[in-house]
Amino acid sequence: MKTYLDCIPCFLRQSLNAARMVSPDPAVHERIIREVLGWADEIDMNRPPPAMGQRFHRRLREITGVRDPYHRAKEEQNRMALALLPELRRELASAHDPLLLAIHLAIAGNVIDMGVNGSVDESDMMRAVRQALDEPIVGDFERFRRAIAAAKTILYLADNAGEIAFDRLLIEQLPQGRVTVAVRGAPILNDATEIDARAVGIHEIAELINNGSDAPGTIFNDCSEEFNRRFSEADLIIAKGQGNFETLSEEPGNIFFLFKAKCSVIADHAGVPLGAHVLVGPSAANSAPSERMS
Amino acid sequence: MKTYLDCIPCFLRQSLNAARMVSPDPAVHERIIREVLGWADEIDMNRPPPAMGQRFHRRLREITGVRDPYHRAKEEQNRMALALLPELRRELASAHDPLLLAIHLAIAGNVIDMGVNGSVDESDMMRAVRQALDEPIVGDFERFRRAIAAAKTILYLADNAGEIAFDRLLIEQLPQGRVTVAVRGAPILNDATEIDARAVGIHEIAELINNGSDAPGTIFNDCSEEFNRRFSEADLIIAKGQGNFETLSEEPGNIFFLFKAKCSVIADHAGVPLGAHVLVGPSAANSAPSERMS
Repeated sequence: MKTYLDCIPCFLRQSLNAARMVSPDPAVHERIIREVLGWADEIDMNRPPPAMGQRFHRRLREITGVRDPYHRAKEEQNRMALALLPELRRELASAHDPLLLAIHLAIAGNVIDMGVNGSVDESDMMRAVRQALDEPIVGDFERFRRAIAAAKTILYLADNAGEIAFDRLLIEQLPQGRVTVAVRGAPILNDATEIDARAVGIHEIAELINNGSDAPGTIFNDCSEEFNRRFSEADLIIAKGQGNFETLSEEPGNIFFLFKAKCSVIADHAGVPLGAHVLVGPSAANSAPSERMS
Repeated sequence: MKTYLDCIPCFLRQSLNAARMVSPDPAVHERIIREVLGWADEIDMNRPPPAMGQRFHRRLREITGVRDPYHRAKEEQNRMALALLPELRRELASAHDPLLLAIHLAIAGNVIDMGVNGSVDESDMMRAVRQALDEPIVGDFERFRRAIAAAKTILYLADNAGEIAFDRLLIEQLPQGRVTVAVRGAPILNDATEIDARAVGIHEIAELINNGSDAPGTIFNDCSEEFNRRFSEADLIIAKGQGNFETLSEEPGNIFFLFKAKCSVIADHAGVPLGAHVLVGPSAANSAPSERMS
């Protein structure tokens, strides 16, 4: 997906929030905002928004010397999400359709505010999960179920820390021995890295790799060759979160996106209402030739 | 009030909305957004936000050749607000405290969405007015009442079209023959100009002047000498809307501001909760020497 003009004010707002999170110094905030404004002539609207996010966060790390500003927030998010798993796992065990419930939960993980400010506790989070579960999922669940059953190799692209604990519940419902989980190659925002994946035990139930990139999405020419090979060889890709949708929505291949459409640009691009919980499967135009023939 | 870093993303968003309102051409939208981004090095954070708004809208008018993009919207806003006056005037006539109700109504006029898109009708607007009237006013109403009684000359700084019909109801409660109403000197956004003031009959109940400026606020070095003289000579200034507050909040003088705090930067600056309906009087530090002595 290209960058829309609407992304620019939103990106500036996010940049300011991130700068404030990383440094208490107003001079740093002003410097980074003026720098971002100064990129005006260079913004390539044909690239997806996460390309700009990657550039910004690299620069913010350079200016502040802080390598992983979201380190503590991610630890806390993992800890809190993990604390909910026993109860959710009991519900999955008695669910009429555990796969459907697990998909709901994986999207719920993308929805809930993991309490970066420490103002959210486990019971708040469980309430948010319950609310998220009440939302209908926009998308063809039965097609997704068939795609899972047919796939010999599944590549699961994770999104955020905390959320990745909920991803674990979905991965536990997928055929054992067929799933590889890919996380970001280096810290970027609160996106999950290998540390977060291990914290919630992903390595115990699936193969774990990283994509070699510090973009908040999946940008092939920034990913490792090994990751790109795995991507092109997988029978099925499950991609979590807006960042992966923004960067992969026009890729051919058997990709299913699971996310909440949190902004109107993405909702329009996906053809769903703002706020919808979405399962977007490959369109005829976007699927790989082999899939299109079948 | 200075420009805060938070104003910049907000300003870009407003700029994009304005560009879309003025021109259907995406190339124009992108051009103007890139230009605004290019101002990065020149943004003077010590000037109030309306200074940037003025510059932007001048440039937008230059690029598009449209002198008054909000012309039709303003006409419609005036028409709809006028349609509500008979009913509101009846309520004022039987009110226990007509001045207090008129102040509520003047702030209500600053609150309600006047239906720029034509999607709002009179009954929607009346509902919005009723909701706005239920909001408490944060501020010292009795001090304002005394200031009105003591003033021989009152300068009333109007804000938007449509809203100015509600201002008329408040002006009707002020001592006759003492009020001058000042509007913007040229079209800027949907701010009221002399055309709008006349459309709602302000000239029939008060002296009507314009400030000679096309800023969405009151920037002295951009206003006419005549306006500045009237400003400095008035015993009492009543200033409507955020734009006038942003540009005059640190001016000495006997100024009362009436507005809804629609953004958190302004709410913080005024020391009120976000969304509050505000009547901000002169602080001891800000009042003119003569007032401080009394």
